[in-house]
Amino acid sequence: LQTAKQLGEHAIIEIIWKHLTKAPNMRVPLGDDVSAIEGEGGAIVVLKTDMLVGRTDIPLQMSLWQAARKAVVMNVSDFAAKGVKPVGLVVSLGIPPDLTRKDIEQIAEGLNAGAREYGTFVLGGDTSETDDLIISVALYGSAGKKKLMLRSGAHPGDILATTGPFGLSASGLKILLEKVKTSPRIKRKLVGAVLLPRARLIEGLTLARTGAVTASIDSSDGLAWSLYEIGRASNVGFLIDKPPIAPEASRFARKHLLDPVELTFYGGEEYELVVAVKPEGWKKAQEAVNLKRGRLIRIGKTTEKKGIFLKQKDKTVEIEARGYEHFKQGGKRRDG
Amino acid sequence: LQTAKQLGEHAIIEIIWKHLTKAPNMRVPLGDDVSAIEGEGGAIVVLKTDMLVGRTDIPLQMSLWQAARKAVVMNVSDFAAKGVKPVGLVVSLGIPPDLTRKDIEQIAEGLNAGAREYGTFVLGGDTSETDDLIISVALYGSAGKKKLMLRSGAHPGDILATTGPFGLSASGLKILLEKVKTSPRIKRKLVGAVLLPRARLIEGLTLARTGAVTASIDSSDGLAWSLYEIGRASNVGFLIDKPPIAPEASRFARKHLLDPVELTFYGGEEYELVVAVKPEGWKKAQEAVNLKRGRLIRIGKTTEKKGIFLKQKDKTVEIEARGYEHFKQGGKRRDG
Repeated sequence: LQTAKQLGEHAIIEIIWKHLTKAPNMRVPLGDDVSAIEGEGGAIVVLKTDMLVGRTDIPLQMSLWQAARKAVVMNVSDFAAKGVKPVGLVVSLGIPPDLTRKDIEQIAEGLNAGAREYGTFVLGGDTSETDDLIISVALYGSAGKKKLMLRSGAHPGDILATTGPFGLSASGLKILLEKVKTSPRIKRKLVGAVLLPRARLIEGLTLARTGAVTASIDSSDGLAWSLYEIGRASNVGFLIDKPPIAPEASRFARKHLLDPVELTFYGGEEYELVVAVKPEGWKKAQEAVNLKRGRLIRIGKTTEKKGIFLKQKDKTVEIEARGYEHFKQGGKRRDG
Repeated sequence: LQTAKQLGEHAIIEIIWKHLTKAPNMRVPLGDDVSAIEGEGGAIVVLKTDMLVGRTDIPLQMSLWQAARKAVVMNVSDFAAKGVKPVGLVVSLGIPPDLTRKDIEQIAEGLNAGAREYGTFVLGGDTSETDDLIISVALYGSAGKKKLMLRSGAHPGDILATTGPFGLSASGLKILLEKVKTSPRIKRKLVGAVLLPRARLIEGLTLARTGAVTASIDSSDGLAWSLYEIGRASNVGFLIDKPPIAPEASRFARKHLLDPVELTFYGGEEYELVVAVKPEGWKKAQEAVNLKRGRLIRIGKTTEKKGIFLKQKDKTVEIEARGYEHFKQGGKRRDG
């Protein structure tokens, strides 16, 4: 029999779905970033849960405050991708018995900081005893009668964009886990992306209001995987002519002879939004995001031809659809 | 510095609360069975999350199907205590890498069975890689504009009642963990209470509609602890003249020279509701529950005098306020 390790996270999730009775009032397909149902009066109720696990998700250099905050941020990021404002969250904490009072205070403060940063509140939760630290956050929001930005609405010819550059977290993880050396200034930026990730909530809420976005996803499993998911859900492909590598990641790649394509597309733990935008709505969308001091970076377009293609100086290469996946990688601390 | 093990679950939760910013629209005090906020239009949004942890919460004889179902039931039980119908749930699963495809199917089917049993649906979730199995369920419901049955409304002179007898799970756990022997018929009943617990959702929803209940809680931390919590929140005490021990638990206690008071009050993992009822509403409440084929068993009354007192044949004894607590017990599998 196949084990979880052999199956990988995506196959596991598909197996689970097959055994679930579908709710009649679901408004988002299983597998999108959030769950949503139509509640009483037609308002859309939005839910999301995801856990942070000590051994696999928390690099040794990350404080408990940062870990707890991140557990909130990664859930908020999925709300951001759908353009939904989070209202409140509950937390299920698995606490190892040797954690101190101070550790627990740090976790509580980190949870609270993450919630307040995005205008939401920790409403309650429960604690259990576990061997490894587990921070399981469940986020609730209401989308009213507005349409959510799904993964499934992109059309060939849409403009492909991201809310920020990529490669910072991937580089930061190399510094943290593989002890790769770099200048203090660059290190601060790269490691900061790992320890203090930001969800693009303002960007997501703003983009949802423009009505210009046809498909949206967050990039926590990496840019390549996000594109693969939009492509699968929307039945489109992508041609990228401006890969959104961050200047600091680019410099880091040059210095350490790393592949910038690898850093940009397969990083994971990035929390930028990846969106497809109707060409006629592009200007409005970009201006709206800029007005909120956010960025919307055009990186290419959606195409009828399936697959993810990257236009380079002299050739066009196909970007393989793989992403960060639990089980298959065996945990981020492996080199730590 | 004190560790989680020294602090215990209740102290840990209090530490966490102190560091949280309170949401302005909370409609249930922190620490009640569920979290609730007033949403748009005045409807009350209700949330609950709690996790099941392999090593501490799942006896070896419990199947993965049963464990997954129980993870849903224990959350539904808290909704039952507040009289709120669950609408949907999301699940955060921590899966050990050696679990097989069949194991994962069992978990999915157990989650689905638990949800469907109480008229609700699994709407989505996420998976992570963990050393120990973690099933973290977050339940959502709406109470409309109805009042929730809190822990805090009991008055001296109210009738104290439970929705069923106690001691079955405690006896069942002794059979499972300490290999205590008993007849097959009794064993089936006692072990069944552990492996297939039932949430008293119909009873809770029915009681809420009567408007006769002044305070309500579920009994997952044991009857004594549930009374302590109602007493603390309502500023009352209790005089119990009919301790609600199940006949099978009573027989089991006699046969194995166990203390029936211990089995009844300190079991934990029971999912009966413990309620205080206005005397003038008692008849209506009991009839309403009976009509739904449930039970409402009068066990005593609430008193002005604080503390939990048990009237026995020739004397009245005080019942100490302790309950099942994570960390302090060190996990249920310790004898398994």
